[in-house]
Amino acid sequence: MTHAEKPAARNTAPLRLGIAGLGTVGVGVLRLLEQNRDLVQARAGRAIEVVAVHARDRAKDRGVDLAPYAWAETMEDLASNPDVDLVVELVGGSDGPALSLAEAALERGKGVVTANKAMIAHHGHRLAKLSESGGGALRFEAAVAGGIPVISGLREGAAGNALERVYGILNGTSNYILSEMESSGADFAETLGDAQKLGYAEADPAFDIDGVDAAHKLAILSALSFGTQVDFDGVEIEGIRQVRAVDIARADALGYVVRLIGVADIDDNGNGGDAPRLLQRVRPCLIPKNHPLAPIDGATNAVVAEGNFAGRLMFQGAGAGEGPTASAVMADIVAVARGDRTPPFSVLADTLRAAERADSGARIARSYLRFSVADRPGVLAELTAAMRDADVSIESLIQDGESGEDGVLVAMVTHAGPVANVRRAIALLENSPSLTGQPLVMPILRS
Amino acid sequence: MTHAEKPAARNTAPLRLGIAGLGTVGVGVLRLLEQNRDLVQARAGRAIEVVAVHARDRAKDRGVDLAPYAWAETMEDLASNPDVDLVVELVGGSDGPALSLAEAALERGKGVVTANKAMIAHHGHRLAKLSESGGGALRFEAAVAGGIPVISGLREGAAGNALERVYGILNGTSNYILSEMESSGADFAETLGDAQKLGYAEADPAFDIDGVDAAHKLAILSALSFGTQVDFDGVEIEGIRQVRAVDIARADALGYVVRLIGVADIDDNGNGGDAPRLLQRVRPCLIPKNHPLAPIDGATNAVVAEGNFAGRLMFQGAGAGEGPTASAVMADIVAVARGDRTPPFSVLADTLRAAERADSGARIARSYLRFSVADRPGVLAELTAAMRDADVSIESLIQDGESGEDGVLVAMVTHAGPVANVRRAIALLENSPSLTGQPLVMPILRS
Repeated sequence: MTHAEKPAARNTAPLRLGIAGLGTVGVGVLRLLEQNRDLVQARAGRAIEVVAVHARDRAKDRGVDLAPYAWAETMEDLASNPDVDLVVELVGGSDGPALSLAEAALERGKGVVTANKAMIAHHGHRLAKLSESGGGALRFEAAVAGGIPVISGLREGAAGNALERVYGILNGTSNYILSEMESSGADFAETLGDAQKLGYAEADPAFDIDGVDAAHKLAILSALSFGTQVDFDGVEIEGIRQVRAVDIARADALGYVVRLIGVADIDDNGNGGDAPRLLQRVRPCLIPKNHPLAPIDGATNAVVAEGNFAGRLMFQGAGAGEGPTASAVMADIVAVARGDRTPPFSVLADTLRAAERADSGARIARSYLRFSVADRPGVLAELTAAMRDADVSIESLIQDGESGEDGVLVAMVTHAGPVANVRRAIALLENSPSLTGQPLVMPILRS
Repeated sequence: MTHAEKPAARNTAPLRLGIAGLGTVGVGVLRLLEQNRDLVQARAGRAIEVVAVHARDRAKDRGVDLAPYAWAETMEDLASNPDVDLVVELVGGSDGPALSLAEAALERGKGVVTANKAMIAHHGHRLAKLSESGGGALRFEAAVAGGIPVISGLREGAAGNALERVYGILNGTSNYILSEMESSGADFAETLGDAQKLGYAEADPAFDIDGVDAAHKLAILSALSFGTQVDFDGVEIEGIRQVRAVDIARADALGYVVRLIGVADIDDNGNGGDAPRLLQRVRPCLIPKNHPLAPIDGATNAVVAEGNFAGRLMFQGAGAGEGPTASAVMADIVAVARGDRTPPFSVLADTLRAAERADSGARIARSYLRFSVADRPGVLAELTAAMRDADVSIESLIQDGESGEDGVLVAMVTHAGPVANVRRAIALLENSPSLTGQPLVMPILRS
C-alpha cells in the first residue's frame, strides 16, 4: 500500500447520541433505531446508542418508551454531556434554542445532525465553519426533501459535475394542493381546507403555501450545488394563493401542469469565477407534461440537478413525515458513525463564494399571464396594446365566455422574451379600470 | 471533543490515478478531469492526478491528449506502480485482464474504482473481501445505472432502512426499444434495427435485449440492498425479443406500459435471519400508468427502492454514455479521495448472507398472457379450459378480429394468483395444435 492512501483505522466504539426534540421526527428516529438496530449498526460498523434525550415536556405520552434514555434537563446539557458524541437537533426554528444547541455542540467538537432547514438556510455558512474548525460533523440530509437522499446525491453522487441548474418540487403541501386542484377542478381555498382536514396542510399554512419552506430548501441546495454561501434572503419567493382552478385548466389545455417550483441557477456553474451571479426563485410554474417533474403529484417531492457530465439527475420520494424524515436523519447518523467528515457544503466553508444576485428581469422566458377584466368593448385591445408597448410577444391568447368571480378571464402565453418586459406590461396596466382583479404571471419551465 | 469521535486528519496529498481502458468511459474520465478539475479537487479536498494510463492500442486517436500521462505497457504495471494510489478499471469483461488487475491492485492495498458490472456481479463478494483485508477501497457506482448515484443512494442515503424491494429500469437499450415501439406502433425487429442505426443498440444487442446486462446490475443492487452475497446466477432472466407491437397496444388499452424491469425482493427485508429467501427477476412487465416508472422512456434508467421508513425512493437519469458514466466514476474517485472507506456492499463482506433462491412460482401476481391461435371454432374454449384446469382466474380477455403474423391473437389478464398456476396453464397448452406460436407471459408490476 502506498503510504498516501493508508486508511484511518475504523472507529468501533459506540456512537453516542443526544437527541433534542421528541416531536414526530424525534420519535421516528427512536422507533427506527429500535426497529432496524441490527441493520443500522452493521452498516455503521459500530453500535449506535441514544444516551440522552431532551424535549419541552417530559410527561407527554409519545407512544415510545423513554425509560432507556437519560433525560437531559436542558438542551445545553446535551452539548456539555461528555457521554454525547453526536447531537441530533430536531427542535426546529431558525434561531433560539436550536441554534444555541448546534453552536454549543460544534464549539465542543461534537457532531450535529439536524432536520432544521430554517437554521441551515439562515446560519448554515457560519455553522459549517464551526464544524470545520472544531472537527465535529454537521449534516442536514433531513432538511431538504424529507426522506430523499438529495444532499448526499449532490455532495457525493454529483461530485464530479459542474452543476448548471438545480430545481424541484420542494414543498409537499403546495404540491398536494396543486395536484388536488388539478384532479378535482376545485379552487384553491376549498382545496386548502380539505388538505387541512386531511393533515396535508397545517392550521397555519402560510409557511408552506407562500413558498418560504421551499425557499429554505432551495437556498441549501444552491449552496451545495454551486459552492456558494447560503443566501436565503436572495431567494425571490411567490406562493400559490393566487393560482385558480381556471389557471390549471388553461395550463392543462396548453399541455402543462402547474407546480410550485424552486429553481436556482448560476452563470458560471460553479466552475471558477469570483463573482458568480446566482438566481434563486420559488414560484408556481407551468411544467410541460413530458417533463419528469410533471407526473410528481400529491405530497411527493422531487429534485432535479443538471450536471455538465451526468446530465439530468432526478431524485424523488416522500418529502415529509415521520418515517421518511427519520430515515434521512439516520442516514446522517450512519455517515458520522462511518467517519465521514466531508465538509457540510461539500467544499470547505471558507472557500464558499459570495454570489451576486442575478437580475431575474433579464432572464428570457415564456410566461403564462391571466387577467380578470371587465366584460366590455376595448378591453382586449387595451391588454394587447400594453403587451405591444412593453415589447411582449403573444404566442396564444384565450378569452372565453366564462366569467370568473371578478370578471372575464383572459389567459395568454408569451413567446420567449425578457421577464422584465412582462413586468412592464403588468405595470402599464396596473391602474387600468378594465382590470377587475390582480393579474397572475407564471413562468413556463424550460425543458 | 470526546476522544471517540476525533476525526482522522484529512489526507491532503494528491490522489494518484492509474487508468486502465481508454474507450468511451476512460476518455470521458480524462475529459471530465480536464474540464472540472478545480471543482473536483475542491470537493475532494486534494489534488487528483492521472499518473499512468493503459489501453490496448497506444496509437489510436481518441480525441484527447495523452501526452501528460505516463503510458503503462501492461495493465499489471498499473497495479505494481508505486506512484499509483488508485486503479480505475474501465476495461470491462467479467474475468480476464480486468479481474486480474482488480485483484492485483486490491492485494497491494490500492483502491479500485470500476464501471465493470459483469465483474462485480460475478466476483463482487470476493473482491470486497480483498478490499476489506487489504484496506484499499472498491467502488462501482458506474456499474449500475450509469450516471445515477444509486449505489451511494442505497449505501448512504437509505442506510437507515430495511429495504423490502429494489427494482427498476436498468437497461437503456431495452427501454429505448420498448418506448419507441410504444410511440411508433412498430414491431420489435424494425425498432431494433432503427435503434442500431441510431447507436442506441449494439451491432450484437443480445446482452442488452436478452436481459443479461440488467441482471448484472440487479444482482449488485440486491446485494447492497439486502446485505446478501451477490448471486448473479440466481437471477431469472427473460428478455424483450418476444414482445410485439400488439402486446404494447393491448397493455396501453388496459392502462399499462411495457418495460423491461429488474426486481429483487427478500422475505426478511435484510433485518435478521440466516437463510433469507431472495427472488431476483429480469423480465418485461406491465407497469400501471400511474406508477413512477411508467413515464421513464428512451434510454433513461430509474431505480426504485422501498424502505421501511423512507417509503418509495426513486433515482433517475441517464443510464449510459460517456458523460454520465464518467460522472459516476468520478463520484467514486472523489469519495476515495475524501477517505471514504465504507465497505463495498455497505456491511463487511464476511457478514453478507448467503440467500436461498425463492421459488418464483409461489409468488402471487396478476399476469398478462398472449396467445397466437388458429382461427377455428373451439380454440377459445380450449384456452379457457386450460386456465380453469390450472386454477387461473381470468380477469379480462380480448380476442379481436386482428390476425397476427402467426394466427389470431388472444390476450388476457389474470386475477392475482400463484405464478406457478400460469406456468401450468401454459404447459397444458404446450402441444396443442391450436397454438400457432409461442405464448408470451408478462407479470403486472404491483404498484
